[in-house]
Amino acid sequence: MDIKKFIRDIPDFPKKGIIFKDITPLLKDKKAFKEAIDQLCDEVKDLDFDLIIAPEARGFILGSAMAYKLGKGFVPVRKPGKLPYKTAYEEFQLEYGTDQLHIHIDAVEKGQNVLIVDDVLATGGTAKALANLVKKVGGNVAGMIFLIELSFLNAREKLQNYWVESLIKY
Amino acid sequence: MDIKKFIRDIPDFPKKGIIFKDITPLLKDKKAFKEAIDQLCDEVKDLDFDLIIAPEARGFILGSAMAYKLGKGFVPVRKPGKLPYKTAYEEFQLEYGTDQLHIHIDAVEKGQNVLIVDDVLATGGTAKALANLVKKVGGNVAGMIFLIELSFLNAREKLQNYWVESLIKY
Repeated sequence: MDIKKFIRDIPDFPKKGIIFKDITPLLKDKKAFKEAIDQLCDEVKDLDFDLIIAPEARGFILGSAMAYKLGKGFVPVRKPGKLPYKTAYEEFQLEYGTDQLHIHIDAVEKGQNVLIVDDVLATGGTAKALANLVKKVGGNVAGMIFLIELSFLNAREKLQNYWVESLIKY
Repeated sequence: MDIKKFIRDIPDFPKKGIIFKDITPLLKDKKAFKEAIDQLCDEVKDLDFDLIIAPEARGFILGSAMAYKLGKGFVPVRKPGKLPYKTAYEEFQLEYGTDQLHIHIDAVEKGQNVLIVDDVLATGGTAKALANLVKKVGGNVAGMIFLIELSFLNAREKLQNYWVESLIKY
């Protein structure tokens, strides 16, 4: 099944000149959604990890379903002010500005291996921040997997120390 | 397995006087997370539905894993400005203020049955808005399920026309 055809281009979102890759047609199609999660899980089958972390909000959709299928715990990474307990955070560069990502300080046990999941790998700024967060709270980064990779933005240059994979490349 | 013991009370979040029910200890425990999703799916086993919708961001975590397990499509409902395509929206009362929830206008096919999923049923304002959104875009509400219900807030008075269930009641 070709899941790429379920990704919709939305021009000028979130701002003029950006072509946004909309995954909602894939999510709402039960076969395409299942296939995407199964393919993501298949890609990481040789990695050793205990937890999946994903950033809000679209990352939650893929990371949680993968965690369920693979029998792993799930750790949400969130924008400032959203997590209720004490957090560690990273400042990072977004494709469209800057922001912070927070993680609960007790989200990962010392030495646990963590898989990072998100919908889109763009410039790699978010991915790099996620990896730093994992290390800040005592974990090891087992790898990173993305549904979509915008290869022309060269994120892999920033992520050379990590195992990185994606299902759909533009 | 008693999943309730994985829910943590955080006093004065997001503001003074509120005791926030933190589900992150449950999510990060692989057995508790699996058990919670399995129990949620078991509760809805007699309902007939095609899609699961859930609001950002914690709703995504439960709704997506349930959709994967049950072989259903998943539809995200989001805050203003987050969904890239044309949306329908509902204005609603939060426990701590007011907000809007948006859904893509093509998220549901006419006559499809939809299950609403969220982490917490508090006053029922969000749940009612979700039900109205489903109807606005042509769907039928098959029911609503929540991990946690704050029974003392009497949400069910607002939701008498719907099938409503929850796993953990306070």
